[in-house]
Amino acid sequence: MPTVFTRKHLLGIRELDAGEITHLLDTAENFRDISRREIKKVPALRGRTVINLFFEPSTRTRTSFEIAAKRLSADAINISVSTSSVSKGETLLDTARNLEAMAPDCIVVRHSMAGAPQQLARMGNAPIVNAGDGSHEHPTQALLDALTIREYKGRIDGLKVAIIGDVLHSRVARSNIHLLTKLGSSVSVAGPGTLVPTEFVELVEQGLTVEKRIEDAIEGADVIMILRIQRERQDAAFFPSLREYAVHFGLHPNHLERAAPDAIVMHPGPMNRGIEIASEIADGSRSLILDQVTNGVAVRMAVLYLLAGGGRTEVEENKIGLAENGTKRRQGNR
Amino acid sequence: MPTVFTRKHLLGIRELDAGEITHLLDTAENFRDISRREIKKVPALRGRTVINLFFEPSTRTRTSFEIAAKRLSADAINISVSTSSVSKGETLLDTARNLEAMAPDCIVVRHSMAGAPQQLARMGNAPIVNAGDGSHEHPTQALLDALTIREYKGRIDGLKVAIIGDVLHSRVARSNIHLLTKLGSSVSVAGPGTLVPTEFVELVEQGLTVEKRIEDAIEGADVIMILRIQRERQDAAFFPSLREYAVHFGLHPNHLERAAPDAIVMHPGPMNRGIEIASEIADGSRSLILDQVTNGVAVRMAVLYLLAGGGRTEVEENKIGLAENGTKRRQGNR
Amino acid sequence: MPTVFTRKHLLGIRELDAGEITHLLDTAENFRDISRREIKKVPALRGRTVINLFFEPSTRTRTSFEIAAKRLSADAINISVSTSSVSKGETLLDTARNLEAMAPDCIVVRHSMAGAPQQLARMGNAPIVNAGDGSHEHPTQALLDALTIREYKGRIDGLKVAIIGDVLHSRVARSNIHLLTKLGSSVSVAGPGTLVPTEFVELVEQGLTVEKRIEDAIEGADVIMILRIQRERQDAAFFPSLREYAVHFGLHPNHLERAAPDAIVMHPGPMNRGIEIASEIADGSRSLILDQVTNGVAVRMAVLYLLAGGGRTEVEENKIGLAENGTKRRQGNR
Repeated sequence: MPTVFTRKHLLGIRELDAGEITHLLDTAENFRDISRREIKKVPALRGRTVINLFFEPSTRTRTSFEIAAKRLSADAINISVSTSSVSKGETLLDTARNLEAMAPDCIVVRHSMAGAPQQLARMGNAPIVNAGDGSHEHPTQALLDALTIREYKGRIDGLKVAIIGDVLHSRVARSNIHLLTKLGSSVSVAGPGTLVPTEFVELVEQGLTVEKRIEDAIEGADVIMILRIQRERQDAAFFPSLREYAVHFGLHPNHLERAAPDAIVMHPGPMNRGIEIASEIADGSRSLILDQVTNGVAVRMAVLYLLAGGGRTEVEENKIGLAENGTKRRQGNR
Repeated sequence: MPTVFTRKHLLGIRELDAGEITHLLDTAENFRDISRREIKKVPALRGRTVINLFFEPSTRTRTSFEIAAKRLSADAINISVSTSSVSKGETLLDTARNLEAMAPDCIVVRHSMAGAPQQLARMGNAPIVNAGDGSHEHPTQALLDALTIREYKGRIDGLKVAIIGDVLHSRVARSNIHLLTKLGSSVSVAGPGTLVPTEFVELVEQGLTVEKRIEDAIEGADVIMILRIQRERQDAAFFPSLREYAVHFGLHPNHLERAAPDAIVMHPGPMNRGIEIASEIADGSRSLILDQVTNGVAVRMAVLYLLAGGGRTEVEENKIGLAENGTKRRQGNR
Repeated sequence: MPTVFTRKHLLGIRELDAGEITHLLDTAENFRDISRREIKKVPALRGRTVINLFFEPSTRTRTSFEIAAKRLSADAINISVSTSSVSKGETLLDTARNLEAMAPDCIVVRHSMAGAPQQLARMGNAPIVNAGDGSHEHPTQALLDALTIREYKGRIDGLKVAIIGDVLHSRVARSNIHLLTKLGSSVSVAGPGTLVPTEFVELVEQGLTVEKRIEDAIEGADVIMILRIQRERQDAAFFPSLREYAVHFGLHPNHLERAAPDAIVMHPGPMNRGIEIASEIADGSRSLILDQVTNGVAVRMAVLYLLAGGGRTEVEENKIGLAENGTKRRQGNR
């Protein structure tokens, strides 16, 4: 395996190269099997401490990271901080430095401010995983989406992917656009005119197309990614009403006829059924929405494993420490 | 042991038969001893994931389930969701399906809506434990009450049990009435006239008596169960004031003279002292209120053990996996 | 080691003697090394249950206790209760008694009411650790401060320690004053005139000096402890404004010239930068603020270890059960 992941942090997809992304996906694929076993646990991170530091409320992502940490035998510590109780900038750093002084092996951070995890990584010592920062990046979401695509399509290179919705405010879209173009997909985005970020103009030569109409973006698509309407992240009215959004940019069954015959549909959740996606599609045979969630645990296991030190000690003894007899040997060696 | 518990879920007492209830109680009795040891832990559910999904605030029940899971060596994940942030019906299902996609071995659910756990059980894959749904059922509470009665009375069959209070709104009462009549107790309930549910008319032939006065219900009772005033669950005023409730339906020391000489007093907690129960009784020698709490951990260990798969793998090797040398053998075998 | 710690609870520093304090610090010193290892875990409290019962919001202290418990292999249960939802006195006791009925090996309590942990200790069975009660005591904070001083100064006896700030409302100050005078430091306190408690008059003969000006307290000090402005704990205005507080009682770089040349600076956190302490000092070479946090985990490991029963069973086999080969031996013996 020529490429390895030697970074200390996972802050975004933008700075990763295709080899690093592929290594993360390969590692996650190995971990996916653990959650299907009866004993869903490997000793890879025994005695390590993973802190989930969430400045925004989250059920799904926090739970996914917590389950991932525990299935690696790490001690998981959850900290929920309402942003209101923390002054900005420096005090975020003080909070993080204080936690670092307790010797965690990894800090998973979600924050409403774009760049918060980068700031912590720059100033501190512990490995930082970005679990979503403002409208900036959500790298583990893009990785789990890619793992899901690869599982069902066998590849990412050469696919046509449509991303539909509030792209401007979506850290999910941003991370996915970076990942998919790096791995050779061509990506079409469509959303209300005002919602497509100008910064992606640079990506047009790498295969990004910006469409005005959902129908044009979906035309021939192998993968349709629907974004969640992030009502809480909009400070201005970008479209007249949810009803109108549903009519113009909601995914309806007749849209699927324009996509490739075996097109798959994804959504990062939680869904606003009947707004950005019709229930028939969400519950239909093309929907991989729950597969995404399952792959989320595997991706987070891989990320924690690589960053929190599991890889450093296990790799010689037992490749990635997943074999159940590996468990026995470690017990014996201690 | 001819009867075993083969159900996938524990949704209510109503659908269980006497053999199943007895099997749950017998299993819990075996687990009760673990919490008295110095090392309060058995490996029965190692590598299993138990999710506590609470849509209503709860300290005691959530803690009891969490301690039960951890003493079985399961990974316990707590999720508290304020009902307000979740739209009803479908979205509850989406939340649950998403969690199921993370491969938990059991989901413990508390919800303000009667029938919510049933809905999850019908639509999903994971074993569901009802930790209280609206005014419907709270099966582990009835089981811990029964375990406590059996511990002090040696039997449930043939006892006279009085249940006093807000029966109409009480999932505790409902589950207890089903359990106690199935196991052969005769049950008298008394509460403000409007608070006795008409649906229990069918149970009258199985030994249920509805009394108007607390004195009549308590007459000759072996067991007195006091219900908590669920102020938060009443949308209309069923009695004029708490003061008046205390006078007419609060348990006072002189009431005990009407009960059997060795009558025991129970309360599911948390208590409103001086309202539904006098402090002298709560702290007196007949009170088993703290024994109920202790038995709650044992009952929840039994339920999690039977539903989350401990039983399937342990049973051959080591009956129910409780012996401490059983622990050693499992280590050696892995 | 002639002195041992035989108390059941840790409620305050006031009632401890110098030998007990030194034993706690020595034990903590042994535990400090564990958090520097790759596998940050010893089996000392495996199968024990530690409940963190916090009636006041806390990120840092709760996290420190939780990490300490988990690094000792205990099961840690977090319970956050907003004081508003609990009536005072009796119901606090009912809450605690209920938790005790679940057989925890230790309950860590933080409460806004001075004396709450003492009340629980008097009425209940489980070992109680005071994690801060009103303006009364915060013993583990004083212990971690002492451990930090000892680490950098080699001793506590004979040092001159200045404590600056809102002494009247500070449980941190109170616990530190008791500890430092018991161990032979001379302590000078300075703060707004109204904020120095009269109750410490009795300590003046044991080396406590009350100064009006920060400059006088700091004169020749080996250790400068800055207290946090506890805005939430002040029900009256004790000083005109934060701006004025910063001018008169904030620690500024020029103050350090009056202290001993190798003086160290401490703060219990979280800091109000620019108010009670200048950022240049907080981030400067004399600041031990993050060392305090690191030592906090070690102190809490020691306290939990001694109170939750680790000491009783481990001490014969393996002194304090810290050696990694001790781990192996326990596995073999079970």
